[in-house]
Amino acid sequence: MPVNDHIVRSFDEDLEALKAKIAQMGGLVEAQCESAVRAVNRRDQTLAQRVKTSDDQIDALEAEIEAMSLRLLALRQPLGGDLRTVVASLKIVSDLERIGDYAANIGKRAIVLSGLPEIPPANGIVRIGALVQSLIKDVLDAYADDNLELAVAAWHRDEDIDELYTSLFRELLTYMMEDPRNITASTHLLFIAKNLERMGDHATNIAETVHFQVKGTKMEADRPKGEDASYIVEMPE
Amino acid sequence: MPVNDHIVRSFDEDLEALKAKIAQMGGLVEAQCESAVRAVNRRDQTLAQRVKTSDDQIDALEAEIEAMSLRLLALRQPLGGDLRTVVASLKIVSDLERIGDYAANIGKRAIVLSGLPEIPPANGIVRIGALVQSLIKDVLDAYADDNLELAVAAWHRDEDIDELYTSLFRELLTYMMEDPRNITASTHLLFIAKNLERMGDHATNIAETVHFQVKGTKMEADRPKGEDASYIVEMPE
Repeated sequence: MPVNDHIVRSFDEDLEALKAKIAQMGGLVEAQCESAVRAVNRRDQTLAQRVKTSDDQIDALEAEIEAMSLRLLALRQPLGGDLRTVVASLKIVSDLERIGDYAANIGKRAIVLSGLPEIPPANGIVRIGALVQSLIKDVLDAYADDNLELAVAAWHRDEDIDELYTSLFRELLTYMMEDPRNITASTHLLFIAKNLERMGDHATNIAETVHFQVKGTKMEADRPKGEDASYIVEMPE
Repeated sequence: MPVNDHIVRSFDEDLEALKAKIAQMGGLVEAQCESAVRAVNRRDQTLAQRVKTSDDQIDALEAEIEAMSLRLLALRQPLGGDLRTVVASLKIVSDLERIGDYAANIGKRAIVLSGLPEIPPANGIVRIGALVQSLIKDVLDAYADDNLELAVAAWHRDEDIDELYTSLFRELLTYMMEDPRNITASTHLLFIAKNLERMGDHATNIAETVHFQVKGTKMEADRPKGEDASYIVEMPE
Protein backbone atom coordinates (compact mmCIF):
# COMPACT_ATOMS: atom_id res chain seq x y z
CA MET A 1 0.00 0.00 0.00
CA PRO A 2 1.46 3.39 -0.93
CA VAL A 3 2.39 5.54 2.01
CA ASN A 4 0.56 8.88 2.22
CA ASP A 5 3.08 11.69 2.49
CA HIS A 6 0.73 14.06 4.23
CA ILE A 7 0.03 11.67 7.06
CA VAL A 8 3.53 10.28 7.53
CA ARG A 9 5.41 13.57 7.29
CA SER A 10 5.70 15.58 10.48
CA PHE A 11 4.35 19.08 10.70
CA ASP A 12 7.91 20.39 11.00
CA GLU A 13 8.77 18.74 7.71
CA ASP A 14 5.74 20.41 6.12
CA LEU A 15 6.85 23.79 7.42
CA GLU A 16 10.38 23.17 6.14
CA ALA A 17 8.97 22.34 2.71
CA LEU A 18 6.95 25.56 2.78
CA LYS A 19 9.98 27.63 3.75
CA ALA A 20 12.11 25.93 1.06
CA LYS A 21 9.50 26.81 -1.58
CA ILE A 22 9.45 30.42 -0.42
CA ALA A 23 13.27 30.50 -0.57
CA GLN A 24 13.03 29.23 -4.15
CA MET A 25 10.51 31.94 -5.05
CA GLY A 26 12.66 34.54 -3.27
CA GLY A 27 15.73 33.47 -5.25
CA LEU A 28 13.84 33.89 -8.50
CA VAL A 29 12.56 37.33 -7.47
CA GLU A 30 16.10 38.43 -6.54
CA ALA A 31 17.39 37.27 -9.92
CA GLN A 32 14.56 39.07 -11.75
CA CYS A 33 15.32 42.29 -9.92
CA GLU A 34 19.02 42.06 -10.78
CA SER A 35 18.35 41.25 -14.45
CA ALA A 36 15.77 44.03 -14.79
CA VAL A 37 18.21 46.68 -13.61
CA ARG A 38 21.00 45.24 -15.77
CA ALA A 39 18.70 45.29 -18.80
CA VAL A 40 18.02 49.00 -18.24
CA ASN A 41 21.67 49.81 -17.64
CA ARG A 42 23.05 47.88 -20.63
CA ARG A 43 20.12 48.62 -22.94
CA ASP A 44 19.86 44.84 -23.33
CA GLN A 45 16.60 44.07 -25.10
CA THR A 46 17.02 40.27 -25.00
CA LEU A 47 17.53 40.25 -21.26
CA ALA A 48 14.61 42.66 -20.80
CA GLN A 49 12.38 40.33 -22.80
CA ARG A 50 13.47 37.40 -20.64
CA VAL A 51 12.62 39.29 -17.43
CA LYS A 52 9.19 40.07 -18.83
CA THR A 53 8.37 36.45 -19.67
CA SER A 54 9.96 34.88 -16.55
CA ASP A 55 7.34 36.54 -14.35
CA ASP A 56 5.01 33.61 -15.06
CA GLN A 57 7.27 31.29 -13.06
CA ILE A 58 6.94 33.57 -10.04
CA ASP A 59 3.17 33.66 -10.36
CA ALA A 60 3.08 29.86 -10.59
CA LEU A 61 5.18 29.56 -7.42
CA GLU A 62 2.86 31.98 -5.63
CA ALA A 63 -0.14 29.80 -6.49
CA GLU A 64 1.73 26.67 -5.38
CA ILE A 65 2.76 28.18 -2.02
CA GLU A 66 -0.74 29.50 -1.37
CA ALA A 67 -2.15 26.03 -1.98
CA MET A 68 0.50 24.50 0.35
CA SER A 69 -0.39 27.01 3.07
CA LEU A 70 -4.11 26.34 2.78
CA ARG A 71 -3.49 22.59 2.94
CA LEU A 72 -1.38 23.07 6.04
CA LEU A 73 -4.07 25.18 7.71
CA ALA A 74 -6.76 22.62 6.89
CA LEU A 75 -4.86 19.40 7.67
CA ARG A 76 -2.68 20.49 10.58
CA GLN A 77 -4.80 23.23 12.16
CA PRO A 78 -1.66 24.86 13.58
CA LEU A 79 -1.70 27.16 16.63
CA GLY A 80 0.56 29.87 18.08
CA GLY A 81 3.91 30.24 16.37
CA ASP A 82 3.09 27.56 13.79
CA LEU A 83 -0.09 29.37 12.78
CA ARG A 84 1.88 32.61 12.50
CA THR A 85 4.42 30.88 10.26
CA VAL A 86 1.72 29.77 7.83
CA VAL A 87 -0.03 33.15 7.81
CA ALA A 88 3.36 34.84 7.39
CA SER A 89 4.06 32.68 4.35
CA LEU A 90 0.81 33.93 2.74
CA LYS A 91 1.82 37.54 3.36
CA ILE A 92 5.39 37.06 2.16
CA VAL A 93 4.48 35.39 -1.14
CA SER A 94 2.05 38.19 -1.84
CA ASP A 95 4.87 40.75 -1.34
CA LEU A 96 7.30 38.65 -3.41
CA GLU A 97 4.76 38.42 -6.20
CA ARG A 98 4.40 42.22 -6.25
CA ILE A 99 8.18 42.67 -6.31
CA GLY A 100 8.30 40.24 -9.25
CA ASP A 101 5.57 42.26 -11.00
CA TYR A 102 7.58 45.44 -10.62
CA ALA A 103 10.68 43.71 -12.03
CA ALA A 104 8.65 42.55 -15.04
CA ASN A 105 7.34 46.08 -15.49
CA ILE A 106 10.92 47.40 -15.44
CA GLY A 107 11.72 44.76 -18.07
CA LYS A 108 8.94 46.11 -20.31
CA ARG A 109 10.17 49.66 -19.93
CA ALA A 110 13.77 48.55 -20.58
CA ILE A 111 12.61 47.22 -23.96
CA VAL A 112 11.22 50.65 -24.84
CA LEU A 113 14.23 52.51 -23.47
CA SER A 114 16.67 50.48 -25.56
CA GLY A 115 15.09 52.11 -28.63
CA LEU A 116 15.22 55.69 -27.33
CA PRO A 117 18.07 58.22 -27.29
CA GLU A 118 20.23 57.62 -24.22
CA ILE A 119 20.11 60.04 -21.30
CA PRO A 120 22.63 60.10 -18.42
CA PRO A 121 20.97 59.00 -15.17
CA ALA A 122 20.97 55.21 -15.60
CA ASN A 123 23.63 55.32 -12.87
CA GLY A 124 21.08 56.47 -10.33
CA ILE A 125 18.89 53.52 -11.33
CA VAL A 126 21.80 51.11 -10.86
CA ARG A 127 22.51 52.51 -7.40
CA ILE A 128 18.90 52.23 -6.25
CA GLY A 129 18.72 48.79 -7.85
CA ALA A 130 21.74 47.58 -5.89
CA LEU A 131 20.24 48.84 -2.62
CA VAL A 132 16.89 47.20 -3.35
CA GLN A 133 18.56 43.90 -4.26
CA SER A 134 20.58 43.81 -1.05
CA LEU A 135 17.43 44.68 0.93
CA ILE A 136 15.51 41.82 -0.68
CA LYS A 137 18.40 39.45 -0.06
CA ASP A 138 18.60 40.43 3.61
CA VAL A 139 14.88 40.12 4.35
CA LEU A 140 14.82 36.69 2.66
CA ASP A 141 17.83 35.60 4.75
CA ALA A 142 16.12 37.00 7.85
CA TYR A 143 13.02 34.99 6.99
CA ALA A 144 14.99 31.78 6.32
CA ASP A 145 16.85 32.01 9.66
CA ASP A 146 14.17 33.69 11.82
CA ASN A 147 16.79 36.44 12.23
CA LEU A 148 14.98 39.34 13.86
CA GLU A 149 18.06 41.57 14.09
CA LEU A 150 18.72 41.29 10.35
CA ALA A 151 15.05 42.00 9.60
CA VAL A 152 15.03 45.18 11.70
CA ALA A 153 18.35 46.39 10.23
CA ALA A 154 17.05 45.79 6.68
CA TRP A 155 13.83 47.59 7.49
CA HIS A 156 15.75 50.71 8.49
CA ARG A 157 17.72 50.71 5.24
CA ASP A 158 14.58 51.50 3.25
CA GLU A 159 15.26 55.13 4.15
CA ASP A 160 18.40 55.15 1.98
CA ILE A 161 16.36 53.95 -0.99
CA ASP A 162 13.79 56.70 -0.47
CA GLU A 163 16.55 59.32 -0.37
CA LEU A 164 18.20 58.08 -3.56
CA TYR A 165 14.79 57.93 -5.24
CA THR A 166 14.05 61.53 -4.31
CA SER A 167 17.34 62.79 -5.70
CA LEU A 168 16.94 60.79 -8.91
CA PHE A 169 13.40 62.15 -9.28
CA ARG A 170 14.72 65.74 -9.14
CA GLU A 171 17.49 64.91 -11.61
CA LEU A 172 15.08 63.41 -14.14
CA LEU A 173 12.71 66.39 -13.94
CA THR A 174 15.69 68.61 -14.72
CA TYR A 175 16.57 66.56 -17.82
CA MET A 176 13.02 66.89 -19.06
CA MET A 177 13.05 70.63 -18.63
CA GLU A 178 16.37 70.99 -20.42
CA ASP A 179 15.28 69.24 -23.59
CA PRO A 180 11.81 67.96 -24.56
CA ARG A 181 13.47 65.13 -26.48
CA ASN A 182 14.42 63.67 -23.07
CA ILE A 183 10.83 63.59 -21.84
CA THR A 184 9.77 60.12 -22.97
CA ALA A 185 12.91 58.37 -21.76
CA SER A 186 12.92 60.34 -18.51
CA THR A 187 9.29 59.43 -17.86
CA HIS A 188 10.06 55.73 -18.23
CA LEU A 189 13.07 56.14 -15.93
CA LEU A 190 10.85 57.96 -13.40
CA PHE A 191 8.48 54.99 -13.36
CA ILE A 192 11.39 52.54 -13.15
CA ALA A 193 12.76 54.45 -10.15
CA LYS A 194 9.29 54.44 -8.61
CA ASN A 195 9.00 50.69 -9.20
CA LEU A 196 12.33 50.14 -7.44
CA GLU A 197 11.22 52.30 -4.53
CA ARG A 198 8.00 50.23 -4.27
CA MET A 199 10.05 47.02 -4.35
CA GLY A 200 11.90 48.40 -1.35
CA ASP A 201 8.57 49.04 0.40
CA HIS A 202 7.50 45.44 -0.19
CA ALA A 203 10.86 44.22 1.12
CA THR A 204 10.25 46.19 4.32
CA ASN A 205 6.79 44.58 4.50
CA ILE A 206 8.58 41.22 4.51
CA ALA A 207 10.85 42.45 7.32
CA GLU A 208 7.70 43.39 9.26
CA THR A 209 6.21 39.96 8.60
CA VAL A 210 9.38 38.27 9.89
CA HIS A 211 9.01 40.35 13.05
CA PHE A 212 5.38 39.31 13.41
CA GLN A 213 6.24 35.67 12.80
CA VAL A 214 9.09 35.56 15.32
CA LYS A 215 7.65 37.82 18.04
CA GLY A 216 3.90 37.72 17.40
CA THR A 217 3.75 41.52 17.53
CA LYS A 218 4.00 44.45 15.12
CA MET A 219 7.22 46.40 14.75
CA GLU A 220 7.08 49.34 17.15
CA ALA A 221 8.35 52.40 15.36
CA ASP A 222 6.83 53.98 12.29
CA ARG A 223 8.70 53.18 9.13
CA PRO A 224 11.47 55.76 8.71
CA LYS A 225 10.93 58.00 5.72
CA GLY A 226 13.24 60.33 3.89
CA GLU A 227 11.89 63.40 2.13
CA ASP A 228 8.74 62.46 0.28
CA ALA A 229 9.17 62.76 -3.49
CA SER A 230 5.42 63.46 -3.77
CA TYR A 231 6.19 66.91 -2.48
CA ILE A 232 8.91 67.74 -4.94
CA VAL A 233 8.36 70.81 -7.05
CA GLU A 234 10.91 71.57 -9.74
CA MET A 235 10.40 74.46 -12.06
CA PRO A 236 12.29 75.24 -15.26
CA GLU A 237 14.84 78.04 -15.00
CA MET B 1 -20.08 34.42 36.10
CA PRO B 2 -19.44 36.55 33.01
CA VAL B 3 -20.30 34.85 29.76
CA ASN B 4 -17.38 34.45 27.34
CA ASP B 5 -18.33 35.88 23.97
CA HIS B 6 -15.93 33.71 22.04
CA ILE B 7 -17.42 30.52 23.35
CA VAL B 8 -21.07 31.48 23.26
CA ARG B 9 -21.05 33.10 19.83
CA SER B 10 -21.49 30.76 16.90
CA PHE B 11 -18.84 30.53 14.21
CA ASP B 12 -21.31 32.07 11.76
CA GLU B 13 -21.63 35.09 14.00
CA ASP B 14 -17.84 35.40 14.10
CA LEU B 15 -17.70 35.31 10.31
CA GLU B 16 -20.47 37.90 10.10
CA ALA B 17 -18.51 40.18 12.43
CA LEU B 18 -15.43 39.73 10.24
CA LYS B 19 -17.36 40.57 7.07
CA ALA B 20 -18.96 43.60 8.73
CA LYS B 21 -15.52 44.92 9.71
CA ILE B 22 -14.28 44.43 6.15
CA ALA B 23 -17.37 46.28 4.85
CA GLN B 24 -16.52 49.13 7.22
CA MET B 25 -12.93 49.24 5.97
CA GLY B 26 -14.17 49.04 2.37
CA GLY B 27 -16.52 51.96 2.93
CA LEU B 28 -13.66 54.06 4.26
CA VAL B 29 -11.43 53.13 1.31
CA GLU B 30 -14.20 54.05 -1.16
CA ALA B 31 -14.65 57.43 0.54
CA GLN B 32 -10.89 58.07 0.50
CA CYS B 33 -10.71 57.31 -3.19
CA GLU B 34 -13.59 59.66 -3.96
CA SER B 35 -12.17 62.47 -1.82
CA ALA B 36 -8.68 62.08 -3.30
CA VAL B 37 -9.93 62.54 -6.85
CA ARG B 38 -12.16 65.43 -5.81
CA ALA B 39 -9.21 67.11 -4.08
CA VAL B 40 -7.19 66.90 -7.32
CA ASN B 41 -10.06 68.12 -9.45
CA ARG B 42 -11.07 71.06 -7.25
CA ARG B 43 -7.53 71.92 -6.14
CA ASP B 44 -8.85 71.55 -2.60
CA GLN B 45 -5.89 71.55 -0.24
CA THR B 46 -7.95 71.05 2.93
CA LEU B 47 -9.63 67.97 1.55
CA ALA B 48 -6.29 66.64 0.27
CA GLN B 49 -4.80 67.07 3.73
CA ARG B 50 -7.74 65.17 5.25
CA VAL B 51 -7.26 62.27 2.80
CA LYS B 52 -3.59 62.11 3.72
CA THR B 53 -4.24 61.91 7.47
CA SER B 54 -7.29 59.59 7.30
CA ASP B 55 -5.12 56.76 6.00
CA ASP B 56 -4.23 55.91 9.60
CA GLN B 57 -7.81 54.76 10.25
CA ILE B 58 -7.56 52.31 7.35
CA ASP B 59 -4.27 50.93 8.65
CA ALA B 60 -5.80 50.49 12.10
CA LEU B 61 -8.75 48.58 10.63
CA GLU B 62 -6.35 46.36 8.68
CA ALA B 63 -4.53 45.44 11.90
CA GLU B 64 -7.85 44.79 13.67
CA ILE B 65 -9.17 42.53 10.90
CA GLU B 66 -5.89 40.61 10.70
CA ALA B 67 -6.06 39.98 14.43
CA MET B 68 -9.72 38.85 14.13
CA SER B 69 -8.78 36.45 11.31
CA LEU B 70 -5.89 34.96 13.25
CA ARG B 71 -8.11 34.49 16.30
CA LEU B 72 -10.71 32.76 14.15
CA LEU B 73 -8.11 30.43 12.65
CA ALA B 74 -6.71 29.56 16.06
CA LEU B 75 -9.97 29.18 18.01
CA ARG B 76 -12.29 27.75 15.37
CA GLN B 77 -9.85 25.86 13.14
CA PRO B 78 -12.22 26.25 10.18
CA LEU B 79 -12.21 23.94 7.15
CA GLY B 80 -13.36 24.08 3.52
CA GLY B 81 -15.42 27.14 2.65
CA ASP B 82 -15.05 28.62 6.14
CA LEU B 83 -11.27 28.39 5.95
CA ARG B 84 -11.37 30.03 2.51
CA THR B 85 -13.51 32.85 3.92
CA VAL B 86 -10.93 33.62 6.61
CA VAL B 87 -7.98 33.40 4.22
CA ALA B 88 -9.91 35.55 1.72
CA SER B 89 -10.41 38.19 4.40
CA LEU B 90 -6.63 38.39 4.92
CA LYS B 91 -6.08 38.85 1.19
CA ILE B 92 -8.85 41.42 0.80
CA VAL B 93 -7.72 43.66 3.67
CA SER B 94 -4.22 43.65 2.23
CA ASP B 95 -5.61 44.87 -1.13
CA LEU B 96 -7.85 47.42 0.58
CA GLU B 97 -4.89 48.73 2.56
CA ARG B 98 -2.89 49.21 -0.66
CA ILE B 99 -5.83 51.03 -2.31
CA GLY B 100 -5.99 53.28 0.75
CA ASP B 101 -2.25 53.94 0.46
CA TYR B 102 -2.64 55.00 -3.16
CA ALA B 103 -5.50 57.33 -2.21
CA ALA B 104 -3.32 58.91 0.48
CA ASN B 105 -0.51 59.29 -2.05
CA ILE B 106 -2.93 61.04 -4.43
CA GLY B 107 -3.88 63.30 -1.51
CA LYS B 108 -0.22 64.25 -1.04
CA ARG B 109 0.20 65.02 -4.71
CA ALA B 110 -3.06 67.02 -4.72
CA ILE B 111 -1.55 69.28 -2.05
CA VAL B 112 1.43 69.98 -4.33
CA LEU B 113 -0.72 70.40 -7.44
CA SER B 114 -2.94 72.99 -5.78
CA GLY B 115 0.11 75.27 -5.67
CA LEU B 116 1.16 74.76 -9.30
CA PRO B 117 -0.12 76.39 -12.51
CA GLU B 118 -3.21 74.56 -13.72
CA ILE B 119 -3.01 72.29 -16.78
CA PRO B 120 -6.02 70.87 -18.64
CA PRO B 121 -6.24 67.10 -18.16
CA ALA B 122 -7.80 66.88 -14.68
CA ASN B 123 -10.89 65.65 -16.58
CA GLY B 124 -9.10 62.46 -17.54
CA ILE B 125 -8.25 61.91 -13.88
CA VAL B 126 -11.89 62.41 -12.88
CA ARG B 127 -13.03 59.88 -15.48
CA ILE B 128 -10.54 57.23 -14.39
CA GLY B 129 -11.36 58.01 -10.77
CA ALA B 130 -15.07 57.44 -11.37
CA LEU B 131 -14.37 54.07 -13.03
CA VAL B 132 -12.07 52.99 -10.22
CA GLN B 133 -14.60 54.01 -7.58
CA SER B 134 -17.40 52.05 -9.23
CA LEU B 135 -15.06 49.05 -9.57
CA ILE B 136 -14.19 49.17 -5.86
CA LYS B 137 -17.86 49.52 -4.95
CA ASP B 138 -18.83 46.53 -7.09
CA VAL B 139 -16.13 44.17 -5.80
CA LEU B 140 -17.03 45.10 -2.23
CA ASP B 141 -20.71 44.41 -2.95
CA ALA B 142 -19.71 41.14 -4.62
CA TYR B 143 -17.75 40.20 -1.52
CA ALA B 144 -20.57 41.17 0.86
CA ASP B 145 -23.15 39.07 -1.06
CA ASP B 146 -20.90 36.25 -2.35
CA ASN B 147 -22.00 37.48 -5.79
CA LEU B 148 -19.77 35.69 -8.28
CA GLU B 149 -21.44 37.23 -11.34
CA LEU B 150 -20.84 40.77 -10.10
CA ALA B 151 -17.22 39.90 -9.24
CA VAL B 152 -16.51 38.56 -12.74
CA ALA B 153 -18.22 41.52 -14.44
CA ALA B 154 -16.22 43.97 -12.32
CA TRP B 155 -13.00 42.11 -13.09
CA HIS B 156 -13.55 42.59 -16.82
CA ARG B 157 -14.11 46.32 -16.41
CA ASP B 158 -10.48 46.82 -15.40
CA GLU B 159 -9.74 46.89 -19.14
CA ASP B 160 -11.61 50.21 -19.50
CA ILE B 161 -9.44 51.74 -16.79
CA ASP B 162 -6.27 50.57 -18.52
CA GLU B 163 -7.44 52.14 -21.79
CA LEU B 164 -8.29 55.49 -20.20
CA TYR B 165 -4.95 55.43 -18.38
CA THR B 166 -3.06 54.85 -21.61
CA SER B 167 -4.77 57.73 -23.37
CA LEU B 168 -4.23 60.07 -20.43
CA PHE B 169 -0.57 59.04 -20.32
CA ARG B 170 -0.13 60.08 -23.97
CA GLU B 171 -1.95 63.36 -23.35
CA LEU B 172 0.23 64.26 -20.39
CA LEU B 173 3.44 63.53 -22.29
CA THR B 174 2.21 65.89 -24.99
CA TYR B 175 1.61 68.70 -22.47
CA MET B 176 5.13 68.26 -21.15
CA MET B 177 6.61 68.50 -24.60
CA GLU B 178 4.60 71.61 -25.46
CA ASP B 179 5.81 73.64 -22.51
CA PRO B 180 8.46 72.77 -19.91
CA ARG B 181 6.48 74.74 -17.32
CA ASN B 182 3.91 71.92 -17.49
CA ILE B 183 6.46 69.23 -16.61
CA THR B 184 6.20 69.21 -12.82
CA ALA B 185 2.39 69.25 -12.71
CA SER B 186 2.15 66.70 -15.53
CA THR B 187 4.55 64.38 -13.72
CA HIS B 188 2.41 64.45 -10.59
CA LEU B 189 -0.70 63.82 -12.71
CA LEU B 190 1.10 60.88 -14.40
CA PHE B 191 1.74 59.33 -11.00
CA ILE B 192 -1.83 60.05 -9.88
CA ALA B 193 -3.13 58.31 -13.02
CA LYS B 194 -0.77 55.40 -12.35
CA ASN B 195 -1.99 55.20 -8.74
CA LEU B 196 -5.59 55.04 -9.94
CA GLU B 197 -4.70 52.32 -12.43
CA ARG B 198 -3.03 50.33 -9.62
CA MET B 199 -6.11 50.81 -7.43
CA GLY B 200 -8.07 49.19 -10.25
CA ASP B 201 -5.60 46.27 -10.27
CA HIS B 202 -6.10 45.76 -6.54
CA ALA B 203 -9.88 45.90 -7.02
CA THR B 204 -9.59 43.11 -9.60
CA ASN B 205 -7.47 41.16 -7.08
CA ILE B 206 -10.45 41.42 -4.71
CA ALA B 207 -12.75 40.14 -7.49
CA GLU B 208 -10.38 37.17 -7.90
CA THR B 209 -10.41 36.55 -4.15
CA VAL B 210 -14.24 36.54 -4.14
CA HIS B 211 -14.09 33.92 -6.90
CA PHE B 212 -11.64 31.83 -4.88
CA GLN B 213 -13.77 32.16 -1.76
CA VAL B 214 -17.03 31.19 -3.43
CA LYS B 215 -15.77 28.51 -5.84
CA GLY B 216 -12.49 27.38 -4.29
CA THR B 217 -10.71 27.81 -7.64
CA LYS B 218 -8.80 30.52 -9.51
CA MET B 219 -10.48 32.60 -12.20
CA GLU B 220 -9.85 30.90 -15.53
CA ALA B 221 -8.93 33.52 -18.09
CA ASP B 222 -5.96 35.83 -17.94
CA ARG B 223 -6.80 39.30 -16.84
CA PRO B 224 -7.87 41.30 -19.88
CA LYS B 225 -5.43 44.06 -20.73
CA GLY B 226 -5.68 47.10 -22.93
CA GLU B 227 -2.61 48.53 -24.62
CA ASP B 228 0.21 48.62 -22.12
CA ALA B 229 1.27 52.18 -21.33
CA SER B 230 4.78 50.89 -20.57
CA TYR B 231 5.25 50.63 -24.32
CA ILE B 232 4.19 54.13 -25.18
CA VAL B 233 6.72 56.24 -26.99
CA GLU B 234 5.85 59.86 -27.64
CA MET B 235 8.34 62.16 -29.25
CA PRO B 236 8.15 65.94 -29.52
CA GLU B 237 7.19 67.27 -32.95
